[in-house]
Amino acid sequence: MKSLFGRDLITTQEWSVDELERTLALAFEFKARRFDHPLRDCLDRRTFMMFFFNPSVRTRQSFECAATELGGHAQFLEPKTMRLKTETSAGETVQDAANVMSRYACGIGIRTLETAVDRYGEGDDLLREYAKWASVPVISMAHDKFHPCQGLADVMGMRMHGGKNLKRKKLLQVWGKGALVRSWCSVQESILINTRLGLDVTLAYPEGYDLDPQVTKWCEDNAAASGGRFEIVHDLEEGYKGADFVYSRNWQSPAFYGDMKKVGADAAKKKEIEMAARYDDWICSREWMSRTNNAFFMHCGPVDRGAEVTDEVCDGPRSIVYDIAENRLHVQKAIMALTMART
Amino acid sequence: MKSLFGRDLITTQEWSVDELERTLALAFEFKARRFDHPLRDCLDRRTFMMFFFNPSVRTRQSFECAATELGGHAQFLEPKTMRLKTETSAGETVQDAANVMSRYACGIGIRTLETAVDRYGEGDDLLREYAKWASVPVISMAHDKFHPCQGLADVMGMRMHGGKNLKRKKLLQVWGKGALVRSWCSVQESILINTRLGLDVTLAYPEGYDLDPQVTKWCEDNAAASGGRFEIVHDLEEGYKGADFVYSRNWQSPAFYGDMKKVGADAAKKKEIEMAARYDDWICSREWMSRTNNAFFMHCGPVDRGAEVTDEVCDGPRSIVYDIAENRLHVQKAIMALTMART
Amino acid sequence: MKSLFGRDLITTQEWSVDELERTLALAFEFKARRFDHPLRDCLDRRTFMMFFFNPSVRTRQSFECAATELGGHAQFLEPKTMRLKTETSAGETVQDAANVMSRYACGIGIRTLETAVDRYGEGDDLLREYAKWASVPVISMAHDKFHPCQGLADVMGMRMHGGKNLKRKKLLQVWGKGALVRSWCSVQESILINTRLGLDVTLAYPEGYDLDPQVTKWCEDNAAASGGRFEIVHDLEEGYKGADFVYSRNWQSPAFYGDMKKVGADAAKKKEIEMAARYDDWICSREWMSRTNNAFFMHCGPVDRGAEVTDEVCDGPRSIVYDIAENRLHVQKAIMALTMART
Repeated sequence: MKSLFGRDLITTQEWSVDELERTLALAFEFKARRFDHPLRDCLDRRTFMMFFFNPSVRTRQSFECAATELGGHAQFLEPKTMRLKTETSAGETVQDAANVMSRYACGIGIRTLETAVDRYGEGDDLLREYAKWASVPVISMAHDKFHPCQGLADVMGMRMHGGKNLKRKKLLQVWGKGALVRSWCSVQESILINTRLGLDVTLAYPEGYDLDPQVTKWCEDNAAASGGRFEIVHDLEEGYKGADFVYSRNWQSPAFYGDMKKVGADAAKKKEIEMAARYDDWICSREWMSRTNNAFFMHCGPVDRGAEVTDEVCDGPRSIVYDIAENRLHVQKAIMALTMART
Repeated sequence: MKSLFGRDLITTQEWSVDELERTLALAFEFKARRFDHPLRDCLDRRTFMMFFFNPSVRTRQSFECAATELGGHAQFLEPKTMRLKTETSAGETVQDAANVMSRYACGIGIRTLETAVDRYGEGDDLLREYAKWASVPVISMAHDKFHPCQGLADVMGMRMHGGKNLKRKKLLQVWGKGALVRSWCSVQESILINTRLGLDVTLAYPEGYDLDPQVTKWCEDNAAASGGRFEIVHDLEEGYKGADFVYSRNWQSPAFYGDMKKVGADAAKKKEIEMAARYDDWICSREWMSRTNNAFFMHCGPVDRGAEVTDEVCDGPRSIVYDIAENRLHVQKAIMALTMART
Repeated sequence: MKSLFGRDLITTQEWSVDELERTLALAFEFKARRFDHPLRDCLDRRTFMMFFFNPSVRTRQSFECAATELGGHAQFLEPKTMRLKTETSAGETVQDAANVMSRYACGIGIRTLETAVDRYGEGDDLLREYAKWASVPVISMAHDKFHPCQGLADVMGMRMHGGKNLKRKKLLQVWGKGALVRSWCSVQESILINTRLGLDVTLAYPEGYDLDPQVTKWCEDNAAASGGRFEIVHDLEEGYKGADFVYSRNWQSPAFYGDMKKVGADAAKKKEIEMAARYDDWICSREWMSRTNNAFFMHCGPVDRGAEVTDEVCDGPRSIVYDIAENRLHVQKAIMALTMART
């Protein structure tokens, strides 16, 4: 199998299933032997640069922790304090920034979400521009399109609790109400990786919350190739029925970017919040969970309790949200070890 | 003796005298063998999370340094960039944040002072809420009520210069004028720990600067149990007379929190500064020090020179302020080693 | 030769040529053996404090990386979040801050540029005040007057490409147009160190862009002592003719500080930008480079492409800008090892 050394990770969709399986296998090893794995020194004294165009909770904590546990160090960088070139102001080009950082670092992580970009896809473009010029791997730490580390952590959590062979198990990826106007990235990554791994993925949301059509098209292709299924429904009963995993998460409508441009970020958010408030049923509750096949409850965090999910479900015996959060650490260690360490 | 592994440290008042003595003993060992102590690797690759709701000078420096010197790494986190749930906005609950951090970290430090809370005690409540949900130790890095690491560093400095047995030695804890409107935490911790260790503690301040009555009640109980004394005076002559240690430090009046709510933080500060300016005598000077038993001058830093103390005293041969500052490092290493390392 | 242990580095002008050569020799060693040099553990668990009064791109990245690669840790500190004493507000004195930091750290780096000070030289004064009180080395991470690490990285890059003996080689230090209103520090350091090392240094700029007369006086003295030459010209043809190295970089006019005081930073910058825009020819282009002795193109970064230099030159085969950027890491490791490690 080809080495992953030097590879970027923008979305799991661009890695082969074999490569994803190798990553997951190493992540499970790191979980089992957190501080005494043979690769514990694989980033000894190496620097991982973390670029946060948007703030973060667990992404920063887990990446910085991952570098530390492999013997390296992650620098926490906020580009707002850096003189980067933009269309309207002088500064350093991505070409120069990426080339110079490649001289210092073993890898570069970038986070850039909706509010840091002007249109959907601009964050993805930025990551690919960095990847073009950097001679070290560029890893998405969540951007407007994808969140590969979250997708891998989700799968790891599903396997911890549902067993290794999840083919044809039903994952309900369901929109949740709430006031956080969330990115598409975690949701899109989840449906992409799970259709590739042969699950039956049902994406459920109220009319008006379509995701990126390119992504749902890929999901159809993935399912066709893996022997799984992919379907979109707008009905909660149909969605929850027989599900083995339920992943409830708010996301913004496709109108959000246009609204941001027209009326500004605050007014656009307000409109989204009002729109989301119309769907009172779209909360993962005990009642809905009773329609499932005793499903596990999943979430990428931070959880918006009382909106995306009730406390009862989130704190219940089938909730695996903290394990999934922990897995972020293990999968990120695996990704860093495989792409950045000369092993 | 029971292990301290896993214990929170919100205030020294909640640790036994034996536990405090063990911590001080290890701190003295770390001072003697800073880089070659047998426990030098006890936090190897472990992550300590530092939550700064308020900015800091030496607390951040000394905690980050402590983690480094034990082989670990401290993450500098500012919750203002994190989406935490508040009464008025959606976000992550303390329950979820603490549970997730416990998966990554060996311990959590929290700093939250007056200006980050709405009422006295709210910072203490927040620490206890984190401690309730976290499965790793929560350490106060100074909060509205207490500052246990400072209290231990003070005692260590007093023993370095005054000898190990300080029972019945007189500590004058005296209010100082100045424009910094300071927290009660360092002062309250000092009088609590020193009454427990059997010193004679005199708390001196102008009328109107009462501290938390619960704390002064504990000080009375502590003194009764330890065979020391605790008294409150409003007279400088009485305070300085025969003192072995003088700890001069400004603090805000009990009216401050109410004023902040009524007129805002800036106006409340202004009122405090005007009020404090009335007490011109309340500065630790050579004249006052001449009434003492050749006392050592103490301060938790940062020192407000020309207000809390004259340059002459602060730079004089009996000043132990830099040693106390250094001790923050040693006691914090000891606390981290005892509560967070599987030794 | 006297040990450099404990020495400050405010400008290369204050170190002997022997000391600079020793530093460069070690930097070349670190470049050759980046992770397996015998001194790789020389800052094991030590803390280097980085004070950024101004934001930074590569300085922060390269210093933090340098500490990591030597086994230590660099703390990223922003004084704006620290209560430091100023003329108008209470806070900690430099005396106290420096003394306390000396108890925690093996060294202190400080960055303070134009916009953080009121007059030219105030940043330099601040560094010297820290150096006066600190018992550990104070290193300039770029300040209003000097940038010693950049100067050393420049020389290292020139030797990598032009050979070790550069005596009497011609360095053109040329002003470049652009909208970034840049500090004098990198330029002044370059002409100081290169005149000391015996190069022929031509400083070229439009009338009105004089640098610090003390610095150009030192350059004359340096050239006299080293057997090189130092000249100032205001003509591009004369400047480029026969140059072996071309270092094109924008800098602000001497009027900038006064303007900042009179009309504020934004208006002063606007005035500088308008003034700089008059000199359309002052860009390092293929045409100008054709007048040289096949010169190498140098820049301290971040490069203002299209203003200081054309893309064609900056991306061309004689550009050594990325190597110079990388050298920042190597020279800073050398400086830290020599001044901060007990080797």
